[in-house]
Amino acid sequence: MTKRRAAILGTTGMIGQRFAHMLDDHPYFEVVAYCASDRSQGKKISEVWKLPDAELSDDLEGRAIQQTVAEDLSREGVELVFSGLPSDVAKDIEDECAELGMAVFSNASSHRTDPDTPILIPEINHDHLEAVDIQRKRRRKGGYIITNANCSVTGLALGLKPLVDAFGIEDFHVATYQALSGAGYPGVPAVDILGNILPHISKEEEKMKSEGRKILGRFEHGQFVDSSVSILASCTRVNVRDGHLEAVFARMPDMPDNERIASTLGEFKSRPQELSLPSAPVEPIIVTAAPNRPQPLVDSLAGSPERARGMAITVGRIRTTEDSLRLFLLVHNTIRGGAGGSVLNAELAHREGIL
Amino acid sequence: MTKRRAAILGTTGMIGQRFAHMLDDHPYFEVVAYCASDRSQGKKISEVWKLPDAELSDDLEGRAIQQTVAEDLSREGVELVFSGLPSDVAKDIEDECAELGMAVFSNASSHRTDPDTPILIPEINHDHLEAVDIQRKRRRKGGYIITNANCSVTGLALGLKPLVDAFGIEDFHVATYQALSGAGYPGVPAVDILGNILPHISKEEEKMKSEGRKILGRFEHGQFVDSSVSILASCTRVNVRDGHLEAVFARMPDMPDNERIASTLGEFKSRPQELSLPSAPVEPIIVTAAPNRPQPLVDSLAGSPERARGMAITVGRIRTTEDSLRLFLLVHNTIRGGAGGSVLNAELAHREGIL
Amino acid sequence: MTKRRAAILGTTGMIGQRFAHMLDDHPYFEVVAYCASDRSQGKKISEVWKLPDAELSDDLEGRAIQQTVAEDLSREGVELVFSGLPSDVAKDIEDECAELGMAVFSNASSHRTDPDTPILIPEINHDHLEAVDIQRKRRRKGGYIITNANCSVTGLALGLKPLVDAFGIEDFHVATYQALSGAGYPGVPAVDILGNILPHISKEEEKMKSEGRKILGRFEHGQFVDSSVSILASCTRVNVRDGHLEAVFARMPDMPDNERIASTLGEFKSRPQELSLPSAPVEPIIVTAAPNRPQPLVDSLAGSPERARGMAITVGRIRTTEDSLRLFLLVHNTIRGGAGGSVLNAELAHREGIL
Amino acid sequence: MTKRRAAILGTTGMIGQRFAHMLDDHPYFEVVAYCASDRSQGKKISEVWKLPDAELSDDLEGRAIQQTVAEDLSREGVELVFSGLPSDVAKDIEDECAELGMAVFSNASSHRTDPDTPILIPEINHDHLEAVDIQRKRRRKGGYIITNANCSVTGLALGLKPLVDAFGIEDFHVATYQALSGAGYPGVPAVDILGNILPHISKEEEKMKSEGRKILGRFEHGQFVDSSVSILASCTRVNVRDGHLEAVFARMPDMPDNERIASTLGEFKSRPQELSLPSAPVEPIIVTAAPNRPQPLVDSLAGSPERARGMAITVGRIRTTEDSLRLFLLVHNTIRGGAGGSVLNAELAHREGIL
Repeated sequence: MTKRRAAILGTTGMIGQRFAHMLDDHPYFEVVAYCASDRSQGKKISEVWKLPDAELSDDLEGRAIQQTVAEDLSREGVELVFSGLPSDVAKDIEDECAELGMAVFSNASSHRTDPDTPILIPEINHDHLEAVDIQRKRRRKGGYIITNANCSVTGLALGLKPLVDAFGIEDFHVATYQALSGAGYPGVPAVDILGNILPHISKEEEKMKSEGRKILGRFEHGQFVDSSVSILASCTRVNVRDGHLEAVFARMPDMPDNERIASTLGEFKSRPQELSLPSAPVEPIIVTAAPNRPQPLVDSLAGSPERARGMAITVGRIRTTEDSLRLFLLVHNTIRGGAGGSVLNAELAHREGIL
Repeated sequence: MTKRRAAILGTTGMIGQRFAHMLDDHPYFEVVAYCASDRSQGKKISEVWKLPDAELSDDLEGRAIQQTVAEDLSREGVELVFSGLPSDVAKDIEDECAELGMAVFSNASSHRTDPDTPILIPEINHDHLEAVDIQRKRRRKGGYIITNANCSVTGLALGLKPLVDAFGIEDFHVATYQALSGAGYPGVPAVDILGNILPHISKEEEKMKSEGRKILGRFEHGQFVDSSVSILASCTRVNVRDGHLEAVFARMPDMPDNERIASTLGEFKSRPQELSLPSAPVEPIIVTAAPNRPQPLVDSLAGSPERARGMAITVGRIRTTEDSLRLFLLVHNTIRGGAGGSVLNAELAHREGIL
Repeated sequence: MTKRRAAILGTTGMIGQRFAHMLDDHPYFEVVAYCASDRSQGKKISEVWKLPDAELSDDLEGRAIQQTVAEDLSREGVELVFSGLPSDVAKDIEDECAELGMAVFSNASSHRTDPDTPILIPEINHDHLEAVDIQRKRRRKGGYIITNANCSVTGLALGLKPLVDAFGIEDFHVATYQALSGAGYPGVPAVDILGNILPHISKEEEKMKSEGRKILGRFEHGQFVDSSVSILASCTRVNVRDGHLEAVFARMPDMPDNERIASTLGEFKSRPQELSLPSAPVEPIIVTAAPNRPQPLVDSLAGSPERARGMAITVGRIRTTEDSLRLFLLVHNTIRGGAGGSVLNAELAHREGIL
Repeated sequence: MTKRRAAILGTTGMIGQRFAHMLDDHPYFEVVAYCASDRSQGKKISEVWKLPDAELSDDLEGRAIQQTVAEDLSREGVELVFSGLPSDVAKDIEDECAELGMAVFSNASSHRTDPDTPILIPEINHDHLEAVDIQRKRRRKGGYIITNANCSVTGLALGLKPLVDAFGIEDFHVATYQALSGAGYPGVPAVDILGNILPHISKEEEKMKSEGRKILGRFEHGQFVDSSVSILASCTRVNVRDGHLEAVFARMPDMPDNERIASTLGEFKSRPQELSLPSAPVEPIIVTAAPNRPQPLVDSLAGSPERARGMAITVGRIRTTEDSLRLFLLVHNTIRGGAGGSVLNAELAHREGIL
C-alpha cells in the first residue's frame, strides 16, 4: 500500500517533536516535509531535538527542516498535515492548507470552536467526523481541519465518557497538576517553578468546560449540540516534565460503588479499538488499584508498551460514598493529549475513507 | 510579669524547630527545656537545626537538648508543654504530662479525637476551650491537652468558616498540593518526588473530613457536636518546601458573587485579633486579586511580616458562578498549620486565664 | 547629610530588583528614578516584583517605572546610576550616562575589558579606583563607569586573594555549580534543568580567567597589569535559586595546612571593613568547619544577618595535602556577585571622595 | 547451552533492581533466587519495584522475594551471586557465599580493599582476574568475590585509562555532580536537596583516590601494585535521578590537543569489545562535540540503545591548553557504575572460563 504523504508543522516544538517521533515509520503515513519557523530552516532534526525520552532513528536524524509555506506543501503532493503550531500562527496557515485540499490534523486551539470543525477523540465522538463533510463543501478543494482537544480535556473527557454514559453522572469538579511540557518551549522559567506551584494557566479552565461539553455533546442536523455536563476546573502548573494529573470529584445521588466505577472504566473500548488503529491503546483507560498511583513519573512513560506508549490514560484512587465519587487520572499531555491525539484522528479518518 | 515555664517536646523535628524559633523571646512563655529522642540528647540546638529560613538567636544556638521525661519536666517547674512529637510516641507522653498537671499544646494527632480534647483554632472555635474544664476534672492535677488541627485542615477550616457562617455554604471539595515539610524529617525520599506528584497521603483525606467537622462544630452540654459541613478531599504531596496549597470547590444555589466572597474572607477577624495575641495575624485571611497567586514560594514566607510570618492564610483566584465557588488557599503548614497553631492556642489559654 | 541622587537601570531584572531592595532607605543614596524597558513603563514596582525573599517596603511598592533615557536622568539631577542592564543594551546607555557626568556602577560585562574601567571588588583592588581618574579626563563632564565582576569571579576572587597574597598560591582549577538567578529572567527553561545539570554557560569560563586576572592584577603607570594567576574553570548551571557554589583546587609544593588556610581566609579584612561601609560584611569570608557546608540553600540567604545578607562568601570543606588544596566556596550571585558588588563600589567611591 | 544458576542479593535496592532488570532473559545466566531483607520476604518483585525507567517483564513481575541465606542458595544450586547489598551487611554474607563455592559479583565496597579481591572493570584491568586464583585457593570450595568499582570511580577510571596509557597524564582533579540513585533508597531526603547542592558524600573522595589507583595499577607477583596516578576529588550530591557528571581537570606539559584527546577516547576498545560480551558497549566512551553535553537527563538513559543502555560513558566539552586538559564525563551510576559493572564482570569471568 502506498503511504499517504504527510507534513509536520511546528516540528521543533514539544508537540511537533512528538509528531515526528510517532510518525517515523508509520504504517499509513509518510512524512515528506518537516516544517518550522524561519530560524530553524535548513537545520537537521537532530540539531533541534529536545525530547530526552524519544530517540531519533538514523533516518529521522538527518532530515532537514523547511519553511512553512502551504503552497510548497501542496506542490510536494502533501495530502495531510499534522500541526503542532502555536495557536496564534496556526489559524491562518491551517486554513490555507485546508483550502488547498489538505486534511489538517491540528493540536492548536484556533479552530476548535469553529461550527463545522470537530474536536475529535475517536474513543468518544467518532461520529463527529460527520462535521467534516460540511467543512469540505465550504472549502474550495475538499480539504478540512480536525482538531484534537486541549491536553487536560483529553484525559478528562476520556475518563468521564464511560461514567456519563453508564451512570448519568454530570456534575464534575477537577483540580489539575499540569506538566511543564504543556507550556511548550521555552515555556515556564525555572526560577518561577522550582519548589513552587503556579495556580493559573491562561484560558485553561474555560477550555476544560467548553471543549469538554463540545466533545461529550452530539453532532445533529449539521451542528454541534453541547453536552449539559458541568465541568468546573482549577488548573495549576507543577514542576513535572510530562503527564497531567487531575483530581476529579463528582456528585450524584445513588453513586455506584468503587468496583462498578472501576470496571466501567477499565472495560471501556470504542471505535479505535474495534478498528485496531495503529496508535490505539488496547485499553484506553488503565485502572490501577495501587494506593499511591497514578504518578506522572511512573505512569506517563512515552516508551512504555505497558502504558500504551502514552496513548492510554491511567485512573487510580477511586473512592465513592453514597453520593460522591473521587478519583485521580493521568494523561500524557504531549502524546495522548497532544500529538498522539491527532495521529489517532488521522488514522481514523484514513480508515473511515475520508483521507 | 513572670513568664510561664515551658518545654518543647520533639525539638529536632520540623514542628519542634518551628516551636523553638517562635518561642524564642516570647512575651508570655520561657522555654526552660528542649526535649528530643535519646540520640539527640546533649547536642546543642545549633547542631540539629535544619530550617534554612529561621535563624537561631545566639542564646538559642547554645541550648542543649535533654531527654523527654515527664517527671523531670514536672520537677523543673514546667507549666506548659509544646509537643511536636510524632503521633505514635506522643500519645503516652502527652498524657503523662497532663496527668502531672501540665498544659499540653500538641501538634500530634493522637488526642484529636478524644471526647474532651478540643482541636482548637482560636479564630474559629475559641469556645471549645470549655472542653478543657471537663478534661481537667478527670486528670489528677488539673493538667490538660489542647491540640492544633492537621496542617491542611487548619488552612481549610480558616477559609471555610466565614463562608459557612455568612452564607451557609456547606458542601466542599478540596484538592491539595502539600509541601514536603508536612511529612516531617527525613520525610519523602528525593527519588520519589523529583519531577513527580504523589497522589496519596496516609489518613489525610479522612482527617480533613473528621477534624474539619469537629472544628466547625459546637461544644454543647459537655460534648462535641460535629458540623454537618461536607468536606471531600483528594490529597497529594508535591515537591515544595513549605506551604500547602488547596483548590477548594463549593456548590450552593444562589452563590454570592466574587466581591462578597472576597470581602467576607478579607474582613474576617475573631478572638485572637480582639485580644491582640502576640502571634495572631492582624488579618487572618489575606485575599489577593493577583491572577497567579497564592504561590507557596511567594506566599509562605516564614520571615515575612506582610504574610504575618506564616500565621495568615492567603486566598486567591476566587471565581463564582450562579451556583458554584472556586478558590485557592494557601497555609504555611508548619507555622499556622503546625507549631504556630499551638503557640496561638497557648496564648489564648493564657489570656483566658486557664494557664 | 543630603543623600546623593541615584537611578537604577534595568529595574525589573534579577539584578535590578536586588539594587532596588538594597538601596531602599540607603544612608548615602536616594533612588529617584527606577528605569526599565518600554514594556514596563508606568507599572508600579510591586507589579513587576519577582524576588520572593526580598520584601518591598510600602514606599518602594508604589514607585513607578520610567523609560531609560540618559538625558532625562541628567535633567532630574541624577548623580549616580546603578546598572543591572543586559550586556547588549548596557554598553551605549552606560556610556551616555557617563558622558553626561554621571557615575555608573554597572553589573554588565560590556565595559569590563575597557582599558581605563576597573572591575572593582573593594576588598581586593580598591586601588584600581585610580583608573577612574583617567576615564574622567576622557569623558566630557567627569562621569565614569565602574563595573563589578561576573558573579562567579567575584566569589572566587574574594576566596583566592588572601591565599595568593599570603602563600603565593597561583594555580587554580575551579568547577562551578551556578544558580538559576545568574541567567536573568526568564533565564533557563524549567524543562531543560528539572532533574538535570547543564555543563556549559556561555563565555563564563573565559570570564573567570580574564576577569580574575585583571582583578587580582595591578594598576600601574596608568594601565592594568594582569596577575599571572592561572584560573581554569568548568562551569555548569544547576537547579538552585540563588548562590553559586564553586569547587576550588590548587597545586603548590609546601602547601600550608588546613588550619593556616582557614585562619588566613577567616581573618581577611580590607578597606570596606576599615571604612565600615554600610553594605560591607564584617567578615567578608565566613569559614565553616561543618562537614556538609556551604550549601546554597542554607548559606545564600538574602535576609540573614548572620550571612551578612548575601555580602559575605562562605568557605568550607578545606582539605590540604602536602602539595594540594581543595575547598568549596559559595557566593550569593545576585547580591555579592551582582547588585551588592556595585552598591559596595558606590559606597567606596562616595567615601573616597570621587562621587 | 545451559545457563548458569544465579541469585541476586539486595533485590529491592536501587542496584538490586538494576540487576534484576539486566539479568532478565540473559544469555549466560538464569536468576533462580531473588533475595532481600526479611521485611520484603514473600512479596512479588512487582510490589517492590521503584525504577520508573525499567519495565518488568511478565515473568519477572510475579517472582517472589526470598530470604538471604547462603546455605539455601548453595542447596538450590546457585553458582553465582550478584550482590547489591549495603556494605555493612554485604561483608559477611558475601564471604559465606564465596566459602560455599559461589562466585560473588559485588557492588558493595566491603571487599574492595582485600588483598586478593580485584576491583574489576573489564575494559581497564581484565588481567586483575588473576587475583581470583589466589582467592580460590584460600576459600574452601573454590568460590571467590569480584567487586565492581564505586560508581564515580568507574566512570572516571574508564575516562582516564586511555589518557594515562597514551599520553602519561597522571595528575587529575575532579569535581562531581552525583545523582540521587547513588545514595540508595530511601537515600537523600527531598527537603535537604530541593533547590540545593550537598557538598559532601561520605568517604567518596577517599574511594575515588584509592580505588582509582588500585584499578589503574598492576597485579604482579600475586599482589596489587597501585598506580601512581594522582586523583584529587571534591564530591557533591545534586538533585538528579540518575547519572554522575564529573568535571575533570588535568595538568601536564605538552598536553595533546583536543582532537587527539577526543580520538584517543572515542577509539578506545578493550577485552569486552573483543569478546563481544553481551553487556559490553560497542563504544565504551562516547565522545560528543555538542556544546552543552553530556547532560544527565539526556545522556544517562537506561533504555537508550544509542547510549548503550547505560553501559557507555559520555565525554564532552574537551578543552585543552598547552599544559592543561578539561572535560566533562558522565556515567550511569547504577548501571555502568553499579549493577551493569558486575554483570559485565560475570560475563568476562564466564568467557574466561573461571565460572
